[in-house]
Amino acid sequence: MDLHAASPALPAGPTTPSGDVLYFPTEDAARLEPHLPPLSSSQSQQTQTRPFVTLTFATSLDSSLSLAPGVRTVLSGPQSKAMTHYLRSRHAAILVGVGTAIADDPGLNCRISSATSNPRAIVIDPLARWSLTEESKVLQLAKAGQGLAPFIFVSDAAEVSLESKEWLQRFGGKYVFVKSFMDGGGSVRFHWEDVLAAVQGEGLDSIMVEGGGQIINSLLTPPNNRLIDSVIVTIAPTWLGQGGVVVSPPRVEGEKAAPLRLTDVSWHPLGEDVVLCGKILKI
Amino acid sequence: MDLHAASPALPAGPTTPSGDVLYFPTEDAARLEPHLPPLSSSQSQQTQTRPFVTLTFATSLDSSLSLAPGVRTVLSGPQSKAMTHYLRSRHAAILVGVGTAIADDPGLNCRISSATSNPRAIVIDPLARWSLTEESKVLQLAKAGQGLAPFIFVSDAAEVSLESKEWLQRFGGKYVFVKSFMDGGGSVRFHWEDVLAAVQGEGLDSIMVEGGGQIINSLLTPPNNRLIDSVIVTIAPTWLGQGGVVVSPPRVEGEKAAPLRLTDVSWHPLGEDVVLCGKILKI
Repeated sequence: MDLHAASPALPAGPTTPSGDVLYFPTEDAARLEPHLPPLSSSQSQQTQTRPFVTLTFATSLDSSLSLAPGVRTVLSGPQSKAMTHYLRSRHAAILVGVGTAIADDPGLNCRISSATSNPRAIVIDPLARWSLTEESKVLQLAKAGQGLAPFIFVSDAAEVSLESKEWLQRFGGKYVFVKSFMDGGGSVRFHWEDVLAAVQGEGLDSIMVEGGGQIINSLLTPPNNRLIDSVIVTIAPTWLGQGGVVVSPPRVEGEKAAPLRLTDVSWHPLGEDVVLCGKILKI
Repeated sequence: MDLHAASPALPAGPTTPSGDVLYFPTEDAARLEPHLPPLSSSQSQQTQTRPFVTLTFATSLDSSLSLAPGVRTVLSGPQSKAMTHYLRSRHAAILVGVGTAIADDPGLNCRISSATSNPRAIVIDPLARWSLTEESKVLQLAKAGQGLAPFIFVSDAAEVSLESKEWLQRFGGKYVFVKSFMDGGGSVRFHWEDVLAAVQGEGLDSIMVEGGGQIINSLLTPPNNRLIDSVIVTIAPTWLGQGGVVVSPPRVEGEKAAPLRLTDVSWHPLGEDVVLCGKILKI
């Protein structure tokens, strides 16, 4: 796979409040195809009990997502950005944690030229911490018809006012209440099975898990990682240095440290970055 | 660059105590050439004041060299191993820290089929901690004519008995005394400039820095990283998980956190791994 190939000229496209329309070359998209959810979703939906899960993110060589929590750090180049938006176009939903939603005020839409629809943004927010306002980018885009309002997954024990619920519904979004538990550190968490069941329950048959660090590390931790169907990681040729937000699954206490391996691996240079595609090796 | 290309059959070669002779395809070697010391060393030696420095190592996706300090962890595949030995054949010296020397009992020789000589092993051992014995692999190989005995770089304040010095010299190795200092944590350290001056003083005009974690992180820390001429990193498609020996340069106190970027970057898939070649971007 040679993603170094010169891209054709960008097609003319309207400039949106969320930035320019992005273009991802067809030949590059074709190479990613084996790592993506099946195209004929109606067929797959009949048999699947949970959505197709793609884990995707971009790190530095030292596996950092950003220089520090809440610090947005541009790591990967423009081609990688276009790839991310292309990947969004191939999933029914995208998922981020509330930390990312608060820190980045992300658009969570799809700006790829070929996209015919936007993915649904799922925000994992057990304690209903996210103070979404009409100024939030994701709602600005929803109002402009350039994105979908988020589904916010909160704990079934969280209190969300009727006013908040109705307000979010006016944009097309909603609060989804998911069974929660308290982890050893006293944090309210979801089981990934419950999250994915709720995603499937909303009729969303594929989801791209994007970040941030806590979400990614949690999904990579055994036994959660068996829920991952595809891994697509972009690596940028930089070191962010110690103290960054690092992707590295925690080791499960009492179990012998063992590497988590990928299989069906392919590496695709993309500009200055490399894209790694693979599947979790089940052991 | 397509290092996936099928390798020609292995040439017949003698099996040595250090393991089989390794073969690295000529076409792959050619692609690494721009990242290696100049081939005509006599020419370059006249003008250079310090050796050509290549930093090379293999990590997991979460930038770990091993599961834990002192735990030898097989990360990369057989092609990457052959590449490492090929790279050794293209350097006058290779360098490891004493931690690696103690933990791994490494051979530190070159087993590539095309090699006509072995690199000199330099071991950074300020406190003269390494209890080298006749059973140590590096001396076994030296005795068998399949490697060179190491030059052990110790602090100019370290006490090494005349007996030890003479013993090591019998194998062709020696102790080299280098000016040292005590760092903030009370550890005896060398300045990299002094190490490289001593390497050059031994008539060694190129050196490949291989590990371990402390050595690599120290060399990547500004301003040391300006001494690096070439970076060759192998990345294996695994996560070792939190608690591994991580490559990630420490941040320099009082300075704004900034990524350390590579330039002249190329990525080369090699078996299941990827090899990244580049230079430190001087800023």
